[in-house]
Amino acid sequence: MSVIYDRVALIGLGLIASSMFWAMKRDGLAGEVTGYAPSAATRDTAREIGLCDRICDDILDAVEGADLVVLCVPVGVMGTVAEQIAPALKPGATVTDVGSVKRAVIESVGPHLPEGVHFVPGHPLAGTEHSGPRSGFAELFENRWHLLVPVENSDAGAVARLRALWEAMGANVDEMEADHHDLVLAVTSHAPHLIAYTMVGVADDLRRVTDSEVIKYSAAGFRDFTRIAASDPTMWRDVFLSNREATLEILGRFTEELFVLQRAIREGDGEHLHDYFTRTRAIRRSIIEAGQDTDAPDFGRGGGKKA
Amino acid sequence: MSVIYDRVALIGLGLIASSMFWAMKRDGLAGEVTGYAPSAATRDTAREIGLCDRICDDILDAVEGADLVVLCVPVGVMGTVAEQIAPALKPGATVTDVGSVKRAVIESVGPHLPEGVHFVPGHPLAGTEHSGPRSGFAELFENRWHLLVPVENSDAGAVARLRALWEAMGANVDEMEADHHDLVLAVTSHAPHLIAYTMVGVADDLRRVTDSEVIKYSAAGFRDFTRIAASDPTMWRDVFLSNREATLEILGRFTEELFVLQRAIREGDGEHLHDYFTRTRAIRRSIIEAGQDTDAPDFGRGGGKKA
Repeated sequence: MSVIYDRVALIGLGLIASSMFWAMKRDGLAGEVTGYAPSAATRDTAREIGLCDRICDDILDAVEGADLVVLCVPVGVMGTVAEQIAPALKPGATVTDVGSVKRAVIESVGPHLPEGVHFVPGHPLAGTEHSGPRSGFAELFENRWHLLVPVENSDAGAVARLRALWEAMGANVDEMEADHHDLVLAVTSHAPHLIAYTMVGVADDLRRVTDSEVIKYSAAGFRDFTRIAASDPTMWRDVFLSNREATLEILGRFTEELFVLQRAIREGDGEHLHDYFTRTRAIRRSIIEAGQDTDAPDFGRGGGKKA
Repeated sequence: MSVIYDRVALIGLGLIASSMFWAMKRDGLAGEVTGYAPSAATRDTAREIGLCDRICDDILDAVEGADLVVLCVPVGVMGTVAEQIAPALKPGATVTDVGSVKRAVIESVGPHLPEGVHFVPGHPLAGTEHSGPRSGFAELFENRWHLLVPVENSDAGAVARLRALWEAMGANVDEMEADHHDLVLAVTSHAPHLIAYTMVGVADDLRRVTDSEVIKYSAAGFRDFTRIAASDPTMWRDVFLSNREATLEILGRFTEELFVLQRAIREGDGEHLHDYFTRTRAIRRSIIEAGQDTDAPDFGRGGGKKA
């Protein structure tokens, strides 16, 4: 493929930024990619593993002359970072981000950007429970969704070019309004993460069941929760604090529904339980048909299905 | 390996029974394996795919002469099935089960078994979200735990022989007391399943977010929940109804903890959230170290990690 941006700056060098670099490098989508992380240890690691063409110790050096600046820092510090880089931004450059919350990012980043710089917020729906500069891989975005959330007056050409980059990295791109994005993600990602964190914490607290038992006998259910609950603590703290209302709304509905199911268990209402579980099973089938997960029978453990 | 039981009868032909058959067949662990399922359609499918050496239309024919009878039916009907097969059980035979709850099974099955028949309840901590006679595969139990829950006066020789069978099928075997088993499983499996079912149901209910959006954008968190929530509705109804007290206790603690985290979000207490998430992350690390899951960075999607 051909170069989409001559100069790209990655600010923050975790899972998403490192995956973007390897994907852009593999397909020659960017001329030069600079990188910056606030931690010197992270920058050292990046240099050691060849992450980015050039790692800068000064954030302004990384941004200077960039056609595309990608903010890959936790949502809670996006505003501060935007304020820092504003003086070095090239006129005509595009600034985007990869934060899991969009309204809060738009409100904290937008006001700092100078006129003539295009702001096109985004959110790749891709991740693993790993974080840091070593966790990235070029295939992370393949067949995953990337949501672009253009703001008022987003330049159509800048949006189209950014879309082209994400598509070239393997993603399917959709556009969505910021508040709707935050509600959809509260349902599909933020509330499930908080629930998983909670359940794993409860298991750890329980005195009559030892940690070693929980760990040894983590059958399918709990094992999947621990994977979710192993995600980056700083990132998730910021997600919950900056998508507060939508997350609390969904958690409220969740608790209401959970109480109804708890009562069905207490009262021995097997029909209610069976109907509910039958309905949720159908949703899973739709997700597999939509290609968002595999139907592998062994959870990727490598056991083959009988031929 | 050599034959451990000359004649094995599998009652109920779902995921566990079919996986047991393929595992026993592969390694020659049983002389003849008979099978019975209450549904004629299931028996037809079993015959069609070569599941079991002989499928019987009469449950008594399947059990007659068997050295080992494995009850692989939902927990709620174990007692009825035990009552049915009791007259055909061979003196000296062992009866076991694979139910996810142990106290209720012991209380419903035990009283029906004639003297001279050994009862050794069990529970393989292995499964997928698939069910039915076509869902089994020989590797299901490899490196998974199988919990044996011997009852008072369980014959030591019968327990050792059943242990040998499970170990030969690849499982690690532990012994546990029934009530403790039910509490441990409430934490590691039953409560997480109910929570996943609930969250998937909430997503389906929400009017402002369409089903198609939920399905398209099911990022990692929600996708794992739908996998859990796709498990067999009848099996899970019976699990919750027959492990009622332990499940409700754990759900009560879960709700309490969830409310504390919700308040931290509402009040903007980022430190509490960050500390909590850091603690749960450590638990995940322990599970990987204990070998109960892989550390694959791409959730088994097949994407390779950068070399």
